[in-house]
Amino acid sequence: MRNPPSLLSLAIDSAVPNLPNFDDLSPLPDHVLVDLFLRTLRAGKLTEKILNLFVATGKEEVLTLIRSLNIRRVITPVLPTTTIKDNEVDIVIGALRSDLTSFLNGWRSVFSQFHLIIVKDPDLKEELKIPDGFNLTVYTKTDIDQIVGSTALSFSGYSCRYFGFLVSKRKYIISIDDDCFPAKDNKGIFVDAMAQHIENLTTPATPFFFNTLYDPYREGADFVRGYPFSLRNGVDCALSCGLWLNLADLDAPTQALKPGLRNNHYVDAVLTVPRTTLMPVSGINIAFDREALGPALFPALKLAGEGKVRWETMEDIWCGMCVKVVCDHLGLGVKSGIPYVWRKDRGNAVESLKKEWEGVKLMEEIVPFFQSLSLSRTAATAEECVVEMATTVKQHLGTAHPVFGRAADSMVEWVRVWKAVGSKSS
Amino acid sequence: MRNPPSLLSLAIDSAVPNLPNFDDLSPLPDHVLVDLFLRTLRAGKLTEKILNLFVATGKEEVLTLIRSLNIRRVITPVLPTTTIKDNEVDIVIGALRSDLTSFLNGWRSVFSQFHLIIVKDPDLKEELKIPDGFNLTVYTKTDIDQIVGSTALSFSGYSCRYFGFLVSKRKYIISIDDDCFPAKDNKGIFVDAMAQHIENLTTPATPFFFNTLYDPYREGADFVRGYPFSLRNGVDCALSCGLWLNLADLDAPTQALKPGLRNNHYVDAVLTVPRTTLMPVSGINIAFDREALGPALFPALKLAGEGKVRWETMEDIWCGMCVKVVCDHLGLGVKSGIPYVWRKDRGNAVESLKKEWEGVKLMEEIVPFFQSLSLSRTAATAEECVVEMATTVKQHLGTAHPVFGRAADSMVEWVRVWKAVGSKSS
Repeated sequence: MRNPPSLLSLAIDSAVPNLPNFDDLSPLPDHVLVDLFLRTLRAGKLTEKILNLFVATGKEEVLTLIRSLNIRRVITPVLPTTTIKDNEVDIVIGALRSDLTSFLNGWRSVFSQFHLIIVKDPDLKEELKIPDGFNLTVYTKTDIDQIVGSTALSFSGYSCRYFGFLVSKRKYIISIDDDCFPAKDNKGIFVDAMAQHIENLTTPATPFFFNTLYDPYREGADFVRGYPFSLRNGVDCALSCGLWLNLADLDAPTQALKPGLRNNHYVDAVLTVPRTTLMPVSGINIAFDREALGPALFPALKLAGEGKVRWETMEDIWCGMCVKVVCDHLGLGVKSGIPYVWRKDRGNAVESLKKEWEGVKLMEEIVPFFQSLSLSRTAATAEECVVEMATTVKQHLGTAHPVFGRAADSMVEWVRVWKAVGSKSS
Repeated sequence: MRNPPSLLSLAIDSAVPNLPNFDDLSPLPDHVLVDLFLRTLRAGKLTEKILNLFVATGKEEVLTLIRSLNIRRVITPVLPTTTIKDNEVDIVIGALRSDLTSFLNGWRSVFSQFHLIIVKDPDLKEELKIPDGFNLTVYTKTDIDQIVGSTALSFSGYSCRYFGFLVSKRKYIISIDDDCFPAKDNKGIFVDAMAQHIENLTTPATPFFFNTLYDPYREGADFVRGYPFSLRNGVDCALSCGLWLNLADLDAPTQALKPGLRNNHYVDAVLTVPRTTLMPVSGINIAFDREALGPALFPALKLAGEGKVRWETMEDIWCGMCVKVVCDHLGLGVKSGIPYVWRKDRGNAVESLKKEWEGVKLMEEIVPFFQSLSLSRTAATAEECVVEMATTVKQHLGTAHPVFGRAADSMVEWVRVWKAVGSKSS
């Protein structure tokens, strides 16, 4: 049985709706002030004017509370989220197959509100087949040659997508491989991967401390007991890495060893990958802040036997190590988890193994290098970080394998081209 | 349409079942050898003898493959898992309420195969009510006084559970708060939290690199493309931190601000919290390797206004920061995620806020301290880590707030008591 409310409690309750009539709360004892503040918040009565009234008391308890709960003068929304308009997003598709009909039709309901950039793999000979009803721009080898000009960068295979990152003029990019389709969640409902990527990017990331209930900014979640209040603001999320159902992004040896292994486990969560923790970034299903990170997403590492199925590539893994280091250095966040896409089977893992083997071995050199890599304070933009990183790659990995020296050259070249194309288009 | 198999492919297939008749594979070309090895693996024909046959070829490709796939001479199981017997586990329950009938009956089907240690909160006056049919030992204030003797350690409230950690003689402890009940998964099926904790502890943790598909050792999961093979072995998992449905482990300000907030989001995942990443360890639902970590799980930080509901305590949060640093230092892993427990509502968050406010403020001092804390190489056991950490706490936090100085004293005292009780019982 509940005790009847105390007289004090009733008095505080009745004060809440009358706060606009007060002009000084400082005579109130501290515990009454805190109680009144919380009840005002819960009643949804905290306007800017009333917040100022509490701030004006100068009482430490209530000021700490305001700071801790991250309440700012802009009252709505209280959470430090941003919004993204549809016309701030380009969806970039690298077309490695000529017939995009089933791919685009599969995504029609979510793609139709966005502008698409389709970049045709320069190695692809056939004409692209694209269904009607999309707002899109197609780029081919001719466009690449004309816009980028003479360059050592290669835009063939999966690397063609990076050309889309280069010519986009929008703040955000979402990039999905052309063998992916919308996935269903645990309730059997198709998820809107675009909306989920955008939500990941518009809510803060929390790289400095792990939250056990995953992304605290998702609806229904929050920070748990023991999470420091001073870190709850988080940082801007610049990269959202989605996942895969059915054919997961395994490497060729794993898939060859377990040919029947499919991922049918939908984990409805997204989390910030902590600062200084490296991860394998897959290019299959990602979204990012192009203005902040574009210069750090490049086609730099090209395997001798690179192919047209994902497990024959390492370009995204290399780029992912670089971009994670850049994000950590610049104080930007990286999230991993939802959205999922459903990936169709393609390729033969045992055949691929002979090619990708080289890539698997390279990783063992790369990881210790990136784990110990730290950038100088003077590197304050993604461009500067990439150029500095390229120099270090050359010094420390250049002798281990020629592929690393070439990757370093491509990183520098990418920054040059990024600036050139950017200055032309603006 | 599939192409017909090549003659070579058919020849390799027919070789697989005949391998026991070969005594030398070295004349085979490298690519045939690799192919034969993979097909042998997939056919489940890799015995120790046949593995030796491949190793004896001395061919680099196949040796690297064997190393990378973590195949060891002990063929079954290939995964480096261990097994835990029921009699290696104690379930420890701190009894803060006298009537444990509904709690124990709720867990009957999973608890009944284990030995339980029930420690009665020394502040609790009433007799415990315990239903029949469990294999258990009850400890009361009398036992605490007798076994620990004169000590400044406090075992009151939630801290009583730590006495159970002390007197257990088993390798593993699972500890669940007495306001928790079995939770249901997304399919509405009750989960066996004990089995899930044990699975977390018996499969390796991977703290050095993030795996985007979460715990790669769960059934149906694996390491993704780009995950370094040299890190796939992982390390021993020493601590498994479970989660909570219904009433989540929020702090009092958050729960006061969002009184209706309940966690109904079951995320079917568990992951390794990366090395050097700190986290809020909640004592509500955890399991650990007592032999490895017991000396580092202690009741050290006692708030002046500590109470009998979780958001009025910080003892587990402090201990969690310490234990994470110890695990990182000793090369042990910490997992967070499943199993969930279902927590019943208890307490009034607004009332608690006045007490726990102190704890919320302390966190802001603690986090930078633990983030920069590094232990010396000479600290090679949990005991040694704790003693060294206590000295550092005293030096760096002792002046900030007296509660930290007392915590440091309790840590040293805990190690003393741990050794004394351990030597008595052995």
